[in-house]
Amino acid sequence: MKIGIITIGSELLNGTRLDTNSKWIAESVALFDCEIVSKISLHDNEQDIVDALDYYFSLSLDMILCTGGLGPTHDDITATTIYNYFDDTPVFDDKYWKILKNEFKKRGFNISELNKSQALKPTIGEIIPNKIGTARGLNYKKNNTIIVFMPGVPREMKSMMNDSIIPIIKSSSTNSTLNKIYRTTGIPESHLYESLLPLINNYNQVKVAFLPSFMGVDIRISSKEKSNFDNFNHELLPIIEEYYYGENNIELEDVVVKLLHKHNLSIATAESCTGGLLGDRLTNVSGVSNNYKGGAITYSNQMKIDMLGVNESTIQKFGAVSEQTAEEMAIGAQKTFLSDIGISTTGIAGPTGGSKEKPVGLVYIGLHSAKLTKVYKFNFKLDRKSNKMITSQAALSIIRKFLLK
Amino acid sequence: MKIGIITIGSELLNGTRLDTNSKWIAESVALFDCEIVSKISLHDNEQDIVDALDYYFSLSLDMILCTGGLGPTHDDITATTIYNYFDDTPVFDDKYWKILKNEFKKRGFNISELNKSQALKPTIGEIIPNKIGTARGLNYKKNNTIIVFMPGVPREMKSMMNDSIIPIIKSSSTNSTLNKIYRTTGIPESHLYESLLPLINNYNQVKVAFLPSFMGVDIRISSKEKSNFDNFNHELLPIIEEYYYGENNIELEDVVVKLLHKHNLSIATAESCTGGLLGDRLTNVSGVSNNYKGGAITYSNQMKIDMLGVNESTIQKFGAVSEQTAEEMAIGAQKTFLSDIGISTTGIAGPTGGSKEKPVGLVYIGLHSAKLTKVYKFNFKLDRKSNKMITSQAALSIIRKFLLK
Repeated sequence: MKIGIITIGSELLNGTRLDTNSKWIAESVALFDCEIVSKISLHDNEQDIVDALDYYFSLSLDMILCTGGLGPTHDDITATTIYNYFDDTPVFDDKYWKILKNEFKKRGFNISELNKSQALKPTIGEIIPNKIGTARGLNYKKNNTIIVFMPGVPREMKSMMNDSIIPIIKSSSTNSTLNKIYRTTGIPESHLYESLLPLINNYNQVKVAFLPSFMGVDIRISSKEKSNFDNFNHELLPIIEEYYYGENNIELEDVVVKLLHKHNLSIATAESCTGGLLGDRLTNVSGVSNNYKGGAITYSNQMKIDMLGVNESTIQKFGAVSEQTAEEMAIGAQKTFLSDIGISTTGIAGPTGGSKEKPVGLVYIGLHSAKLTKVYKFNFKLDRKSNKMITSQAALSIIRKFLLK
Repeated sequence: MKIGIITIGSELLNGTRLDTNSKWIAESVALFDCEIVSKISLHDNEQDIVDALDYYFSLSLDMILCTGGLGPTHDDITATTIYNYFDDTPVFDDKYWKILKNEFKKRGFNISELNKSQALKPTIGEIIPNKIGTARGLNYKKNNTIIVFMPGVPREMKSMMNDSIIPIIKSSSTNSTLNKIYRTTGIPESHLYESLLPLINNYNQVKVAFLPSFMGVDIRISSKEKSNFDNFNHELLPIIEEYYYGENNIELEDVVVKLLHKHNLSIATAESCTGGLLGDRLTNVSGVSNNYKGGAITYSNQMKIDMLGVNESTIQKFGAVSEQTAEEMAIGAQKTFLSDIGISTTGIAGPTGGSKEKPVGLVYIGLHSAKLTKVYKFNFKLDRKSNKMITSQAALSIIRKFLLK
């Protein structure tokens, strides 16, 4: 089933609101044999809506799902636009008007004359009931395309989709699409792609998409055919093993905390350049308190010495951003907080503070435990916030790999 | 200027990602005499992109802004599509290829042959430089419409917009709309609306929009007429004074660090429920190291005692989440880090750990300095991450108000 979405409302075009409705619709129909071909956001403007409907009809879609503009105020012009577009003559629905009046009374309001527009019903099209609001939906058919108009209020739209529209989609869906996202970090998109190319070429029934961000690359696999899907996944995992940390919506910190819990180990953080971000991410995970002892944000040299026991001579000789300081910070974190593992970050987040020898983005991450003491060096070349974020990602990745050994 | 947006990427149509790029673009161009007429999201599919470009050309737009699909992998087909659409013959850019190779080397990778596609340059169109990534943008002109293609990675798109596209929009914006956003925190939208209603009714040439989030409410003022705009702003400020912390894109942490700098004061953090987030936000501000001594993330009771000198008896008698513990943590932070001000957070972030007496969302924030020692109590009723975020916002707001006295 080929579907197009139209979301109507100026708030979607002036930067005020994110279009969460179309994401929700896409997620809901992804379970069936559907493809959202396109989505368009428009102002509450008759000509714009007409143009977009004409454009969508030219694409031979099976279904057009529209939301927004069915309210009672002056800028809600969707219903009138539809009646004109389909040459329909709406009639006043006395029965619904009585229901509406009663609804308002129950809520302690007098109904406004403005709401009368919501009591119209189409002659050619069909009404879609709204169980939780006053704006009913509209349903038309033209050639072989079903066109559905729903309110923009998310909970009303969702209820209408679940009750009236998804059953239609479900009944005409032959087989469902299988989906999975693999999350990776520490490898550029092009390298990941190259290492997967033979596999991608072997399975042309399996769709593979790469979703890169500076924190890592997500790989999205989809297929309509289960055995291809399963075989692809089976062959994929060993190739991406080193960089792969989880599926779908999982975050790296969730994986790390789960591993700490599994091995019954505790951790402590010593943060310089990340300034608390690593602790923040670990404590985003509910239940972390059994495995996270705490951390020191040591933004000054003196605090690295006083709180973590870093040697003054180490800082003098090698600098605060150095392998040696990172190591002593990690050891200090483990000892101060009496944890099993200590992890440290020290680097130059920028935009100032860099030099030729120690440029912005230079980062050392130290890990210390009874089993291993090691420092990792990185050269991130991003802006301040991104350098902090990617450092926290690299630190979590280091902890994860250590715990897997 | 009439603008249309096209965002390309299957992740925008299968429910995987929210389209935050188009919201950011809409927000950025709203400052000028611009209208985003429509936005369309498409799959990485040549015919879909061609159809959408044709549709947009039929609307006589001044500018079409496209993002996505300029990466090096098989699903990145935007560049090829554009070359075909504009009958352009790209040539290989040796110079840029050398730069790319060097960039990869610096980051510790060998460049992949795949990246060669990113070293093509158009003959008819123009290159838009990318200061922070490998995918350069493309710029075409057809009839009177400018068509811009940018990468989908948000930070690369933003940098390209700021450096190359917004200057074009700015220069062709004639009758500019005056815009200002006032950022507030600590007051609900409905109260803010009520207190501003007389003013809004007095100035019907001035448009006022409320943009609420759980962190606070932004008030957006716009007008084409300067004297009305100025008078409105002049009358607005005294009404919102208590809650207003800055204009446009400024963050509360920027304001706080600026004030610390102005008064030549230093601060230290003692975080329990925020787990490092407060330190993270303060250290997002470049140059903070002169005013931020550091912090302790004391997630366990023992660390509150050992690192911050909280009395064991205080925790036993009143609990870790209490006015008394918050106060001793703030005092401990100031003393341990030898700073002028100590700020502490302790609370129940949830979703577990709440009780009838101390429900999820109960938070105490302590402030200590030579001048003042005070604890503030809050009842936030959000999810874990939001409780952490709003606690950090409240803590920064408390510091700001203290520094203004």
